[in-house]
Parts: sequence; structure tokens; C-alpha cells
Amino acid sequence: MPAQNGANALPLTILAEQFAKLPGIGMKTAQRLAYFVMSMSEDEAKAFADAIVRAHKTVHACKICQNLTDREICPICEDGTRDRSTICVVEGPKDVSAFERTREYKGVYHVLHGLISPIDGITPDKLRITELLRRIQQGGVEEVIMATNPTPEGEATAMYISKLLKPLGIKVTRLAFGLPIGAILEYADEVTLYKALENRNEI
Amino acid sequence: MPAQNGANALPLTILAEQFAKLPGIGMKTAQRLAYFVMSMSEDEAKAFADAIVRAHKTVHACKICQNLTDREICPICEDGTRDRSTICVVEGPKDVSAFERTREYKGVYHVLHGLISPIDGITPDKLRITELLRRIQQGGVEEVIMATNPTPEGEATAMYISKLLKPLGIKVTRLAFGLPIGAILEYADEVTLYKALENRNEI
Repeated sequence: MPAQNGANALPLTILAEQFAKLPGIGMKTAQRLAYFVMSMSEDEAKAFADAIVRAHKTVHACKICQNLTDREICPICEDGTRDRSTICVVEGPKDVSAFERTREYKGVYHVLHGLISPIDGITPDKLRITELLRRIQQGGVEEVIMATNPTPEGEATAMYISKLLKPLGIKVTRLAFGLPIGAILEYADEVTLYKALENRNEI
Repeated sequence: MPAQNGANALPLTILAEQFAKLPGIGMKTAQRLAYFVMSMSEDEAKAFADAIVRAHKTVHACKICQNLTDREICPICEDGTRDRSTICVVEGPKDVSAFERTREYKGVYHVLHGLISPIDGITPDKLRITELLRRIQQGGVEEVIMATNPTPEGEATAMYISKLLKPLGIKVTRLAFGLPIGAILEYADEVTLYKALENRNEI
């Protein structure tokens, strides 16, 4: 019988280990969360567990844009008022949410579910690029906006896809990079400042 | 049909809201965690959900010390080598883990599951104080160490319980407060420094 820690009863340790698998949650926070679950009512704990299983079971990729949805086709793709001639290509569902919050973009999306990153074993075939090409081959698409992050992986992915699309006669654009609104010039990094200078507009 | 956010499919929102109920997790992190769950395999998601339900179902308070355990009596209370004449009274199971990590304490524990805090509606009857008194009345206890936090609530709880125990002829002690090991005197707060001065020991 180990004279160890009574609090580390096995099921609690298992629960803490589950929490620790989540991104940005270390073992100490995971333990705190596990103890918090113990302080929930049984119904609350069940609702939490059910939400995990149900989300996992019912949410999947939209047949058209690959964004996560609980229907066959997501509300954006189904919405007749959206401009289907413009596709905004993003890394993940979070980016769709970000663009939707601007309330300015009226086109549709295509979610890649990742960025090309050979070091992490993410080759182009792991992304939803084939689905994007198939969409474009069906016709009606005039512009594809590459809206991946301004990181090496985001740039590489944008370049890779634009090279595939150019021969199809599609206009491929990239998000503008420059000073973020509200930024203080003095503290901007050199690359951002260079981009802001390079992409200057007449006023 | 709202032309809103396809990513905010209902089950995902529900899952994010569940995560947001956890302490220290805001809505933005909760969404990130919900998306992460979507990237798990179905088996992993099920294991996570099961861990919540199982921990909640099988883990309960030890009959003796009230610490969380999946047995009737926790390993510490059951361990014959522990000194049952000394009870260390703590706020929660996390504190038991903290003391066990020192590998120095050989006595047993009593977990209050909270601290007296009238503002939050936590009156003494909400804590496991009756259970502590019953343990002491059964005899064999020589010393009770009040090991609650050096906060107003921790101090109040320590004072309240020590007043209950003094008439029983039990030695009641309090943790020492002073400079933490490795601290830099210059940066210590005044109360800590005062305590360190007040509780100085001959060398």
C-alpha cells in the first residue's frame, strides 16, 4: 500500500491527465480542473461529458467548404445571399469565425484544416486542397483569397495553392500585410514596417 | 437561416460553454479547447468524457479525513505507518498533495473542503468541522495543525476551529509564516517581513 497521496485516487489522476492533453493546459492546471469537476453536481458533470461526445459525434466538415458544422452543408454555404464567386481560403474554423466577426466579407470560405509544414509531417495531401480544386473545377469561381497567417507555414501554403490555381485562370489574391490599426510605429517589427512601406497606398 | 457563423454549429457552442465554466478558462480559450476536442479521435473524445463521469461517480470523501478517494478509506488514513495523533487541517485536497510532496509530514490530514467566508455564504456548518470534532472525540489525537492559507479566510477558519478545540485539551498549532526560501528580502511584502521578524529563531 503506497503511503502516497490519497487525493491522487486513480480516477482523479486519469481525469487530470485527460485535461492535460488539451493545448495550453499543464499538469498543475489540469489537476485544478479535475478537482473543479468533482465540485460539480452529477448532472453538470454528465452535461460536460455529453457535450464532448455529442460535439464529436454530430459535428463534421461541411461537404462544400470543409468548415465544421452539424449539418451536411454549413449555413454559410447554404446562404443564397453569399457571393459564391469569391472563396476565402483559411487554415481553420477559427479563422472563419474571425472573418465573420468583421461582418464585411460576403463571399464563401474554404477551410484547409492545417498549413503545409513538412517538419510536422503536414504535406499538401493532408490538407483539403483537392476539395478546393474540385470546387473550382465546377466553375463559377472568379477569385480565391489566400487568407492564411503571415507565418512561414502560412506563406508556403498560400504560395503552393496559388501555383496550383494560376493555370486555371483564377485570380488569386493575398491578404494585405501592414501596420495593425492602433499600432505604434515605434514598436512595430521591421518586417511589418517594411510590408507597410512596400504596400503603401496613395491618399 | 442566419447567415452567421458556420463554425458555431450548436454542439460546438455547447461544448465551448462547458469548457468556459471551468475556473480560469475564458470563452476564447474554451472555443480553442472545443476545436481541439474535434481534432481528437472518437476514442480519445470518449475516454475524455468517460474520465469526467467516472471520476465524478467513483471519487468521494474519505470516511475519516474527508480527502477525495475512490475507496471507503483513503490510502493515507489506511496506512499503518502514519502518526494518527497529529492531524493537519487543510482547506482542500490540493493542499494534501502539496504536503505529501514535501515527504516530511508523517501525520494524517483533515480536509475542510473550503474556508469560512460569510460573503460567499460559506458558514462553518458548510465545512467538515463536525467530522473533525468527532474524530478528536474518539481520542488519540494530541496535536491539530491549522494549515489553512495565510489569507483572511484562512486565518478566520484557523481561529474558529482552534477556539473549538482548545477546551478539548488539544494542542493546536499554526503553520509558520515568514520569508519563503529563495526569496529576496528587498521584494518581500511588509506583512511577510513583519511575520519573519516576529517569528525569528535563535541560530
